[in-house]
Amino acid sequence: MIDYSKLKPARDVAIIGIGSTIFGEHWDKSLRDLAGEAGSKALHDANIDPKEIQFLVGGNMSGGMFVGQEHGAGLFADHLGITPVGAIRTEAACASGSLAVRVGYMAIASGMYDVVAVGGAEKMTDVYGDRATSVLAGAMDQENEAFHGLTFPGVYAFLANRHMHDYGTTREQLALIPVKNHRNGALNPIAHFQRKITLDNVLNSPLVADPLRLLDCSPISDGAASLIMVSADKAKDYTNSPIYIKASAQASDSLAVHDRENITTLNATLVASKEAYARAGLGPEDIDFAEVHDCFSINELIAYEDLGFAKKGEGGKLIESGETEISGKIPVNTSGGLKAKGHPVGATGVAQLVELVEQLRGEAGKRQVENARVGLAHNVGGSGATVVIHILSNER
Amino acid sequence: MIDYSKLKPARDVAIIGIGSTIFGEHWDKSLRDLAGEAGSKALHDANIDPKEIQFLVGGNMSGGMFVGQEHGAGLFADHLGITPVGAIRTEAACASGSLAVRVGYMAIASGMYDVVAVGGAEKMTDVYGDRATSVLAGAMDQENEAFHGLTFPGVYAFLANRHMHDYGTTREQLALIPVKNHRNGALNPIAHFQRKITLDNVLNSPLVADPLRLLDCSPISDGAASLIMVSADKAKDYTNSPIYIKASAQASDSLAVHDRENITTLNATLVASKEAYARAGLGPEDIDFAEVHDCFSINELIAYEDLGFAKKGEGGKLIESGETEISGKIPVNTSGGLKAKGHPVGATGVAQLVELVEQLRGEAGKRQVENARVGLAHNVGGSGATVVIHILSNER
Repeated sequence: MIDYSKLKPARDVAIIGIGSTIFGEHWDKSLRDLAGEAGSKALHDANIDPKEIQFLVGGNMSGGMFVGQEHGAGLFADHLGITPVGAIRTEAACASGSLAVRVGYMAIASGMYDVVAVGGAEKMTDVYGDRATSVLAGAMDQENEAFHGLTFPGVYAFLANRHMHDYGTTREQLALIPVKNHRNGALNPIAHFQRKITLDNVLNSPLVADPLRLLDCSPISDGAASLIMVSADKAKDYTNSPIYIKASAQASDSLAVHDRENITTLNATLVASKEAYARAGLGPEDIDFAEVHDCFSINELIAYEDLGFAKKGEGGKLIESGETEISGKIPVNTSGGLKAKGHPVGATGVAQLVELVEQLRGEAGKRQVENARVGLAHNVGGSGATVVIHILSNER
Repeated sequence: MIDYSKLKPARDVAIIGIGSTIFGEHWDKSLRDLAGEAGSKALHDANIDPKEIQFLVGGNMSGGMFVGQEHGAGLFADHLGITPVGAIRTEAACASGSLAVRVGYMAIASGMYDVVAVGGAEKMTDVYGDRATSVLAGAMDQENEAFHGLTFPGVYAFLANRHMHDYGTTREQLALIPVKNHRNGALNPIAHFQRKITLDNVLNSPLVADPLRLLDCSPISDGAASLIMVSADKAKDYTNSPIYIKASAQASDSLAVHDRENITTLNATLVASKEAYARAGLGPEDIDFAEVHDCFSINELIAYEDLGFAKKGEGGKLIESGETEISGKIPVNTSGGLKAKGHPVGATGVAQLVELVEQLRGEAGKRQVENARVGLAHNVGGSGATVVIHILSNER
């Protein structure tokens, strides 16, 4: 393992502004409209003149296949009216957004820029016919998985079946996850689905890929989210409540699941969480709440274990205990998660940090976690070929 | 303008290894094969154990639309066998590769990583039917340009016509650029076209978009290139001939050309070159040679002016003078440029730096520029919505 004590960022970084569109089906808005709305809201929230922005990083998974538009970050800079600042698009499938945060973080930590706008956006509903599943399959190993007809519900069904086989995880335990996340989403004014569902709803929803059913699966959403980030030393010039990035960490794994030794864990989560905890000087016991990547219910359950919130194999018990509810010991996906808040793939990683900042500012309303001081965001690309973890705190 | 004297990178960065595939039509190789070959060659050139690599950045413009594969950097890490290192794909159309260099540079400059692999790759010839032009149009403004049928030869024809109108630039001056670049490409063992062409060949080649003809246009190529980068303080541990990155700079402009005040200049080149010269503490007169983005002949001519090698409107005179030949005062595109070396779009920005490193090491063979100490690379995305400039030197 890399010795992160010798690889310290040269400068601390803080978030001073957040913005997000409502997530959902935006038939009247295009990719640029969504990104522009989220970016404008973040600029407004930071109370900053757009001319102060020196650099932009934009996450977008598949503008090319969804709407024929590559060059997304350039488009965002153009539509936000902040040219000629440099603009970089980042992509690692559904982790594209948190990679934008990560590159924005590096841009400031390196000393090269002081004020950076970060965004994530995806316009998924404009895709021709029912091709969204094919587009998303671009995140897996095209030659060895997608070519043979595998889809993402299928991949995550492998993980679910094996977890149930090895650890006795039950169908009902899995179903508790979307039930919790919809309960939280019902409290979130930007969520795609602002309504509760029951255990019976999940268990009786149409089968997608055995054992996963429709209500185990995150939806196809349009949406965008944005952050304004500055060097921590300058944060108080802009706001009384800066939120600090304590760690930015990332790991990879084989794109294809058949190349992995073990599919009941995401090794990239294990590696990235070790990096994140080492960089932050914290452990899982120090995390007050988390946003994790519940693209399918099984993935939140596995994340409990891989992030250290539950012992291996005991993710099912953790969801049953109620401790991941907003009032529990380790609230998870207070936003509603990908399942209820929605999953515009390139926006998700940034949106997770928007939720963390709202919580850490104490501005999460009915979703507010009491005494929230340290939050963690866990964003997965593909079936775990990319994992990105950020740890944020309201204390420097 | 941003005051770059206050935005210095915390650490210097050096390149210790380079690798490239041959550029051309690789019917027997896929995207991963190309990236793996270039990456392996760079690791070998750096004489480094792959286990020392801590982070990877990979440029790829449109793996999704070309071969159905997003998540390119994860794939590269996977195929190179260097998981679980973090892997970020960067994209800004034809500038995707140099953005990978830029993010790798930030990763090291920030102090977060010491040893980073950077790659760029594109597999363009597998695209269904003749859709390559449509895929490439994803780099322009989809809603306001591509939707109406505009293509890239068309956009650059606008620039060429206006430059000829405003400054008297001639059709023959434009044609001298591909003639020079093919002369150089004939000396480059990795070039797509290793043969000379004549002025008559260019002037009599089929018309593509008036005034641009087939031999004004860079080709559709497959290929990949890679660099191994380390913190400058550690470079001498690996090699006796590290090449130092003196500046990494970038700017943006509107995606659509109709939104610009002036189309005979790329404003993003003006802004990025000011940043690059400021960061390096150098001026155009200090540049010994350059690789510039000659996707169409007019773009090299405009680059002469925007980079400060010629006065505005006098790019035509510069190519006529012969001073951009390998033996001239300011050799440009000694590699053959995009026109003759080839233009696998995601690889191009990295490949430009491979050429710079070969020249600065004195290993460019028959293409060697005498006393090459400082080289500049100029990489354009779209019709100038993104411009990335790097300045390299063999002296720290």
